[in-house]
Amino acid sequence: MNKVCKVPIGGTIGIIGGGQLGRMLSLSASQLGFKTHIFDPDPEAPAKQVTNISTTFPYDDIAALEKFSDSVDVVTFEFENIPKESIKICQRFSPVFPDANSLSICQDRINEKRFLNEIKIPFSPFFSGSTVSEILQNESVLQFPMVLKSSRFGYDGKGQRIINSKQELKNSESEFKNTPVILENFIDFKLEISVIICRDMFGKISAYDPSENYHQNGILVESKVPANISFPLASDAILIASKIVNALQYVGVMGVEFFVTNENKLLVNELAPRVHNSGHWTQSGCLINQFEQHIRAITGWTTGDAKRHSDVTMSNLLGSAISRLDNKPDSSVNIYGKGAPRDGRKMGHINRIN
Amino acid sequence: MNKVCKVPIGGTIGIIGGGQLGRMLSLSASQLGFKTHIFDPDPEAPAKQVTNISTTFPYDDIAALEKFSDSVDVVTFEFENIPKESIKICQRFSPVFPDANSLSICQDRINEKRFLNEIKIPFSPFFSGSTVSEILQNESVLQFPMVLKSSRFGYDGKGQRIINSKQELKNSESEFKNTPVILENFIDFKLEISVIICRDMFGKISAYDPSENYHQNGILVESKVPANISFPLASDAILIASKIVNALQYVGVMGVEFFVTNENKLLVNELAPRVHNSGHWTQSGCLINQFEQHIRAITGWTTGDAKRHSDVTMSNLLGSAISRLDNKPDSSVNIYGKGAPRDGRKMGHINRIN
Repeated sequence: MNKVCKVPIGGTIGIIGGGQLGRMLSLSASQLGFKTHIFDPDPEAPAKQVTNISTTFPYDDIAALEKFSDSVDVVTFEFENIPKESIKICQRFSPVFPDANSLSICQDRINEKRFLNEIKIPFSPFFSGSTVSEILQNESVLQFPMVLKSSRFGYDGKGQRIINSKQELKNSESEFKNTPVILENFIDFKLEISVIICRDMFGKISAYDPSENYHQNGILVESKVPANISFPLASDAILIASKIVNALQYVGVMGVEFFVTNENKLLVNELAPRVHNSGHWTQSGCLINQFEQHIRAITGWTTGDAKRHSDVTMSNLLGSAISRLDNKPDSSVNIYGKGAPRDGRKMGHINRIN
Repeated sequence: MNKVCKVPIGGTIGIIGGGQLGRMLSLSASQLGFKTHIFDPDPEAPAKQVTNISTTFPYDDIAALEKFSDSVDVVTFEFENIPKESIKICQRFSPVFPDANSLSICQDRINEKRFLNEIKIPFSPFFSGSTVSEILQNESVLQFPMVLKSSRFGYDGKGQRIINSKQELKNSESEFKNTPVILENFIDFKLEISVIICRDMFGKISAYDPSENYHQNGILVESKVPANISFPLASDAILIASKIVNALQYVGVMGVEFFVTNENKLLVNELAPRVHNSGHWTQSGCLINQFEQHIRAITGWTTGDAKRHSDVTMSNLLGSAISRLDNKPDSSVNIYGKGAPRDGRKMGHINRIN
């Protein structure tokens, strides 16, 4: 159990990051009667349209972070690529959930693998190095194909590529220059699933049903519940996710992505210390969705029931798909208020009850 | 079919009235990617917390209304007690849904009864007068108990009282001074139900399942679906509601309240030309709730599916009930961001799936 910091009714939640996740967090905070304060360097950040309090400064501006965190009752964030130091500054003025330790583990693939190894959770084997050259020292034992990933700042398939030979690995040196990397075994999985889990300040855990996820070019395009997996596999995934949030004394929602191998083994692929795209189905499939759940957890409520009442398919609206969006009488529609619909950019999503 | 005025993705919706209904309309507009502009004379209006564009002027300030309606793509309102003239001003600059005609009928009990009579829809018999004295001219035929209501500006049981005798009617003259009134037969109903119905610009109608409503001191405390009525009665209620919105060429969501008499007859009690408290259950019982539905209708989309996936009980949080609100793991919580929790004031509501 963590120290319980209860935000009063009508209190203010500071949200670092004003993209679609920050926007949907803000909408749920508003539903629960809280005010929100969005911190984002972009004056046009989508979340700034849905609140009357915002700050426009770089994520590492100390004075701005101090003022921001001093003015709110609790701080949270919508994405993991925030300097850990910024979170530490905020922690001096307000509680921050998830905390700096959870962030620093989940924002760096090398830290993440070390942590999973410590608590004995299976993941795909890997080599790591402070540069690609360092990994090349192991070249005699590398078994291609493998996947090269930057240790930090990757998202939506960015910062990773499949490597089929030593030569390709050598050629990738310039692309991954001056950045710590990991080289993973290529997992020939049969399915990708994820568990959206939430732990509150009282240590209570609630997990949504695992979703089955489809990616294209590294970007999520669709999540479906129920996932086409057995009940024991679903509970194993939930148990693994709960072990992770317990080990971190984590507060809030976390997304845990898994590969399901051809041998029906679960391997953790990635931890996201935040609400997660593959959990958007909960808006239409559950009484209490992942956004309301996260806000409840970080404001000192107990988490709510994560029971699923319906089968749902969530489809992302990527790039120009948004302009082809016409009437969808069978779908609940979410559009993020972004500017130009660049290729692969997440512009919105729709939920359909099956 | 009405003229179709499609609001572009990312366009702005003007909402007159910044209370809880305006706030929840704004949240749903944000979900759909629209910006919102809240017009309310109260600088602290709850809806102003959930958008970055607002106007603070009286509802009859012509210059402010002109500027407001010129700056948005469409105008709607959260409550019926707006001067019809204000809506007419807005209509010069932007489409307004529902329109001034629908508003003027639904904001005045005498107009409403006349309209229902014209389209042959049953309601409780009444006498009307420009003052209580005028009604007293009928005293020989009055059969008490009856209910005296001001013709306009009533809500949450305000502006109405039960009258048991001619003397009581005479005594009420001072309370209802200088205001048109109606005196209705007291209906000894066995149930109150309501239908939340939506008509889009293409003339398509979608209706939610009728809810069963409980009032205390004229204020709604609970709505339940399914209502404890027969299927034929439920469809009759929906058919009556659809006749009303068709006759008005109405665009948007309307709440139609009914009495179910001891003889199982339906009498229309009241029309609300807006989203309605007794429709808040749709947030947890339907894929597309009344707020998303209203925004879809007024922005030129077709209405979505109004199918109910779950049985729901919606309970209002009145006055200090908000401070006794603790953890509700089985409920989705909505709090409106209002100030002082005065007796009977609607501070929030919770939805429970049964």
